[in-house]
Parts: sequence; C-alpha cells; structure tokens
Amino acid sequence: MDYSTNDSKSTSKKKVVAVVGGGLVGALNACYFAKRGFQVEVFESREDIRQAKIVKGRSINLALSHRGRQALKQVGMEDTIVSKGIPMHSRMIHSLNGTQSPIPYGKKGQYILSVDRANLNKELLSAAETYSNTKLNFAHKLLNWSTETGAMTFLRADGAKEEIQADLIVGCDGAFSAIRKQFLRQSRFNFSQTYIPHGYLELTMPPINGEFAMKPNYLHIWPRNTFMMIALPNLDKTFTCTLFMPFDEFENVTTGDQVIEFFQKYFPDAIPLIGADALKRDYFCLPAQAMVSVKCSPYHLSDKCVLMGDAAHAVVPFYGQGMNAGFEDCLVFNEIMDQLNEDFSAVLPEYTRVRVPDDHAIADLAMYNYVEMRSHVNSKWFLFRKYVDNFLHIIMPRTIIPLYTMASFFVIHLTPIYSTFNMILSLYYCEGF
Amino acid sequence: MDYSTNDSKSTSKKKVVAVVGGGLVGALNACYFAKRGFQVEVFESREDIRQAKIVKGRSINLALSHRGRQALKQVGMEDTIVSKGIPMHSRMIHSLNGTQSPIPYGKKGQYILSVDRANLNKELLSAAETYSNTKLNFAHKLLNWSTETGAMTFLRADGAKEEIQADLIVGCDGAFSAIRKQFLRQSRFNFSQTYIPHGYLELTMPPINGEFAMKPNYLHIWPRNTFMMIALPNLDKTFTCTLFMPFDEFENVTTGDQVIEFFQKYFPDAIPLIGADALKRDYFCLPAQAMVSVKCSPYHLSDKCVLMGDAAHAVVPFYGQGMNAGFEDCLVFNEIMDQLNEDFSAVLPEYTRVRVPDDHAIADLAMYNYVEMRSHVNSKWFLFRKYVDNFLHIIMPRTIIPLYTMASFFVIHLTPIYSTFNMILSLYYCEGF
Repeated sequence: MDYSTNDSKSTSKKKVVAVVGGGLVGALNACYFAKRGFQVEVFESREDIRQAKIVKGRSINLALSHRGRQALKQVGMEDTIVSKGIPMHSRMIHSLNGTQSPIPYGKKGQYILSVDRANLNKELLSAAETYSNTKLNFAHKLLNWSTETGAMTFLRADGAKEEIQADLIVGCDGAFSAIRKQFLRQSRFNFSQTYIPHGYLELTMPPINGEFAMKPNYLHIWPRNTFMMIALPNLDKTFTCTLFMPFDEFENVTTGDQVIEFFQKYFPDAIPLIGADALKRDYFCLPAQAMVSVKCSPYHLSDKCVLMGDAAHAVVPFYGQGMNAGFEDCLVFNEIMDQLNEDFSAVLPEYTRVRVPDDHAIADLAMYNYVEMRSHVNSKWFLFRKYVDNFLHIIMPRTIIPLYTMASFFVIHLTPIYSTFNMILSLYYCEGF
Repeated sequence: MDYSTNDSKSTSKKKVVAVVGGGLVGALNACYFAKRGFQVEVFESREDIRQAKIVKGRSINLALSHRGRQALKQVGMEDTIVSKGIPMHSRMIHSLNGTQSPIPYGKKGQYILSVDRANLNKELLSAAETYSNTKLNFAHKLLNWSTETGAMTFLRADGAKEEIQADLIVGCDGAFSAIRKQFLRQSRFNFSQTYIPHGYLELTMPPINGEFAMKPNYLHIWPRNTFMMIALPNLDKTFTCTLFMPFDEFENVTTGDQVIEFFQKYFPDAIPLIGADALKRDYFCLPAQAMVSVKCSPYHLSDKCVLMGDAAHAVVPFYGQGMNAGFEDCLVFNEIMDQLNEDFSAVLPEYTRVRVPDDHAIADLAMYNYVEMRSHVNSKWFLFRKYVDNFLHIIMPRTIIPLYTMASFFVIHLTPIYSTFNMILSLYYCEGF
C-alpha cells in the first residue's frame, strides 16, 4: 500500500499496524498509532457507523470518567468529547415512594460525563482519518491471520479477499474477539468468560415540554435489590433508562399489561415519565441483552499481536469503567512505547505485565459492585457511609479517598490499593455508577 | 449401522449414543450406556491404546479412591481394577535430612489405590467391547457436528469421511475438548481455563534387588515449599516420581550436572534410589508438562450433547480427585437416567444442575491444595493437625471427618460441606494426596 507524507511526528517509519475493530478503543488506538507515525490500517467488520442508520444492541450512552478523559487528552480529543457530554455530579437515588436523594461522586466540582456512544465512536473515527497515514477499512471481515508472519486475510463486502502484511496486529474487536481465538490455542493462555444471571433492556424517557423529564446532571438509580434501573441524560434532552434484571424475571413479563403492573410495583414514578404506551411497546423491542465478564492473560502473542479494550477485559457495566479502562489501555501502551523505543518484542510483554493486574482488579470490582449496587445503595447505612466517606475526603483529601472517587478521578494503578485493602474493603468501597 | 442382539438389559432401544473420546471416562461411559441398552459408538482420535507401543505425555499412574471405585462397581469393574492396584494407606513425608514420617489417609483399613493409567484404560475399553451393542472406532478425528440434528462427521485414518447420526453426543474428550468448542459459541456459556505456574516431570525409580526401592504401600511426598516431588508405586515394583516445579525453575536446570546439584540440595535421599545416571538422562526426556484447571457451565447443550470428565472439569492433580470425579460423572448421570426415565431433555439439565457445583468445588479444593501441599505438609503444625483430625475421627467417626477422608472415602455431594464450612475451613482441611 502507498502512503503519502503525513502529519505525524515521524515520516520515516513504515511499520504497519493493523487495528482490528473500529469501535471506541480501535478508533482511539488508530489515533495513537497514527500520531506515532505508523502506517495504520483499521479493519472493521461492520459498515461505517457514520453512514449507518441505526446501531442496535449496544448501550446508547456511557459514563466517561477521568481515566478515559486522560486517554482522550493525549490525542487532543478531550475537549471535543467533553463539550458533547453531560456532567453528572451525583447519583440520584429514587426510592419506592418517589423521593429522590442525591449521593455525590466526590468533592464539589468532580463529576463524570454522560456521552453518546455512537457520537463518540464517529468523532474518534473522524479524528483517526485526519492522519494521512491512517486508512479505515469498513465491511472487512477477518478470515485468518498468522502471528508468525503477520499475514492477514480479510473478506470484503464485495466478496473479494484482501491480504495485508502487518508488523503489529492490535485486537480491539470486543468481548467476542476473533483475534483472541488464536490465543486460546496457545499453551498456557489463561481465559475466562462469565455471564451474570442478569440481562439488560433500554427504554427512552422523552423530554417534557422540551425539557429533561428529570434533573439532568445526575445518574439516576432505582435500586430494587435483585434488580435495578438507571438513567443517563442525553443531549437531545431524553434519558436512556436501563433496566437490569435476572433473565428469569424478564421471562415472567410477557404482555404490555404485565409491564405496567411490574413498573407500578417497582418504578411507579417512571411510568408517567416514560409514558405508559411507549413503555408497553418499547419493552418488547429487543430481547434482554446478556452481560459477560472476560478476563485473560497474557494480552500479547509473540511480538506481533496484542489485545486491548473489551477483547482483553470485558467487564460488567456496574463500575462504569469498561470504556475508560479500554481507553487507558491505549494510553498505557503509548507510554510503554516511549519507554522502550517502540521495540515490540519488549513493549508487548511489558504491557501484559503492567496492564493485566489493573484490568483484572477493575473486572473484579465491577463484579462486586454488581452485587453492591442492587442492594446497598438502597440502605440508610450505605447513604451514611457515603456521607462519612465524602466528608472525610473533604477534610483529608490526600489520606482518605473513597474507592469509586479514586477509580474515576485519578489515573492510578488500582491493584496495589486493591490488594492492600483486600477483598473485604473492596466490597465495602465498591460504589460505581 | 447394524446391531445384533446384545447382552444388556434391554434390546428394544435403538437410540445411538456417540461417546467422543476413548480415554478413562469415555471408556467407562461406554460401559454405562451399553448396559442400559443404547447403541454405543465410541470415537477416539488416537490409535487403540491396546495396540499402541508407548503412550507419552500423560501421568503414568493415578490414585483411585472411593468415588471412583463406586463408579467402577456399578458396571462390575471394581474388583478387576482393584486387584491390579497397590493400596496406599498413608502419605510418607520425606524431610530434607532423609527421615520419613507417615500421615495416614483415614482410619486403619482406609486406603487409596495406585493404578496404572494405561492398564486401566485398556481394561475399560475391553469391558466396553464385551457389550455387543458397543462399537469402538479408533483413529477417528471429529470434523464437525450439529447439536440441532446430532449429525456428526469424522475423518478416518484412511482419509475417508464417516457420517453418523447420534441421539446423544457425550463429550469425554479431555481438557482440550473439541466438543466443548461449540459450547463456547453459545450464549451464556461460562468457561475458564487457568494454567498454574508449575509444570511436572516424571522419573522412574527402579526396583532394588527385585524389590521396591522404598516402602510400597505409601504415597511418598517430598514437600519443598515452592515445589515438591511425589512417588506412587507400580505393579512392576518401580515407583513413578513426579516433580512439580515452577516453569521458571525448570528452565534454570539445563545440564545433567545441574540436575544432580538440584537433587542433592532438595531430594538427596532420592538420588541413589533413582540412580544418578538415569536421573541425568531421564530429566531431559520430555519437557515439563503444563497443568490446567478448566471449569464451565452448563455441561449440556440442547437435549443432544453433554460433557463429562476433564472436558467438563479438568482439575489440577493435587487433590487426587480428577479421574475419580470423572468416573463419578458417569455414575451420577446414570442415576439421573433412572430417575427421569432416560428422557434426555430432562436428564441433561438435571445433570448440569446437580453436577456443576460438586465439580467446581473439587476444582477449587484441588487449587487450594496446590498451595497447601507444597508447604504445610512440611510443617509440624500440619502433622499435629492431621494427628488430631484422625484421632477425633476415630473416636467420633460420624461427627468429625477430615475433608480429604470425606472426599476420598465417601461418595458425597461435596458442595454443601464446602459452602457451609466455607473457604477458610476449606483451606484448613484441604490435604489431598
């Protein structure tokens, strides 16, 4: 392939980096590698999301926190993305009787952002395309590849096969990664995929008289023990509500009337806001989606292949750190590239060494929080603990930091904290979202 | 395929059960299904072990305990196998200075058996073949199969393809199961494979003057903290010694002299018994083998496919219960077949429901014991605890049962005990081998 001169810091490098997957982490990674001067080829099996009409089956919005912002900042994308996000300074807990109680995320001024997944993906793809040494290949399905030679074969939408020779293959192809499959055949590759008994379903809460139906700068939570609902604000003044519930219970609700009955019992205040008719209809638009936690190690195979984002560590969404951890992968890899002069044979093992424990800690915390969130957010004891935590953090900001604040607002290596305070304290401190 | 009348309790059934894998669990399972009157087809990718010269890369002998014996008993194989096993009534702990201290497995009269893997496999295959409704197909490699239709395609050694229509596919094809791969593609299949940092290597300790070089009715253990060696007796009056050690440390020993130096430091009493020259040579015969722990759930897919043995739950060998748990799978499945009148659509989910928690408990116990065995067996505190445990068990046999005794000598559902006493007690009580 032919590359003209580019706008990156070096034009002498001609090494080819094949980024497999053009989702959030793949697109951001393309920017990072392009900025370093590599010849970047992004291969995405789906159509270009910027031309596609509707993207189904993924969460509509996401919580962007400090880790994610730091990673965007390095490629000059932080301000663009933040400007299209909606700050959420607090959780807002909805009790059964309709009263709402805020629980701040951290000190005054600290917040996470509700961002639109599709828009974020589009912005990052367009940013990658501004580098002349980057090519985006859509509707390219990976057929096979070799970690020995870096040879890859793709099937294009027109039925033709395309071959490419990569110096580095970066698997950013999500929780069901095709790239990862070859890792499974290698000796001593540790891998786990764990489905939780809960599924999720998204509902839209429309604006009322052109305004948000609830207070916008909050992440709204309806904790109901075995299940819960959350709602994040969107720029179009809608909220996206996500109902998390065991699959068994989803199966018990099969008619529109049962939906209303169910909501009247558990989320009565949400019915007029979503609208009874919309609720009856939208509840059955898509089946409840499964959630999987994926852990593996190592993240690299020889000096030719590395996994990042969900391909390396899909997490359950209850810590709000899945995308942020994926973005941080890019940042951490980039730092190691600096330290080790872009020598893949040294960079890849170091990336595994540094990154696996942190990602595993986040995956574990997300899983603990899955249990925590559904119950404790509801209890007076939890509210009191939050109050004490935040109070202590305000008066002793360097000594006492609630774990969620730490994970969201400081770019830190979580593992030492995690292993020091240990599982009991983790259970105590897990309060994502 | 044509089946003549057979010697099983029913000849009217013509349902075809395809057992994939002709190892220990596959061969035993063939007996169980044949006894029920199914048309049994066993497919093994390797040659017939009864004709093969040397079987490499698997452990030479195994510890058969009560669970395994119960499963053999049901198909009339217990006595045959026990008669070719060597009872081990105690562990024999070898300290650095050469002193040996026995630690009994249970009360007087309780013992586990050292059995030869290859012989056990041969006996079970021959037993399966005595049923006229059983066919053993060797050198048949599974190419593809469908859980919808039960259609299976195999590649024969002569290059021809063979098709078969199964009513039930039983995956007994080991830790790296081909059958299990299709489970991975299904929604909500939980799976993990975990390699431990240790590898193992087998050495032979020959007879001295036609007699065992050490006391035969013991499982000999040399616990050395980060690593250890064990030795089990064979019928030919040899011992098979197995050295467990981190791969890193295996890599540090690269010459014959280093082997001797290493043994002089840690296992001085074993050098004259194995023989210095043999040790120098045999240590490098095969590379150290990896050990993997595999867990998954569910064990079944639709009403056509089920996993048993290592395909469902490979465990690390430190609890001595891998084969025994696999044999017990056959027994438990058989009991459920009785209870639910061989209705696969009911039997398979019930098998998953009953069996997964027990197998996971055994896998966890084996992993804890991996840590326990290398260190605690060595300490005076452990010896004292064993003494107290066994003493209490003798005076209160129905009230106090050491966990290892329980796992080895009683066919029990381990999970309730496991979850009641919980992880801390499990750590306390795990003392396999």
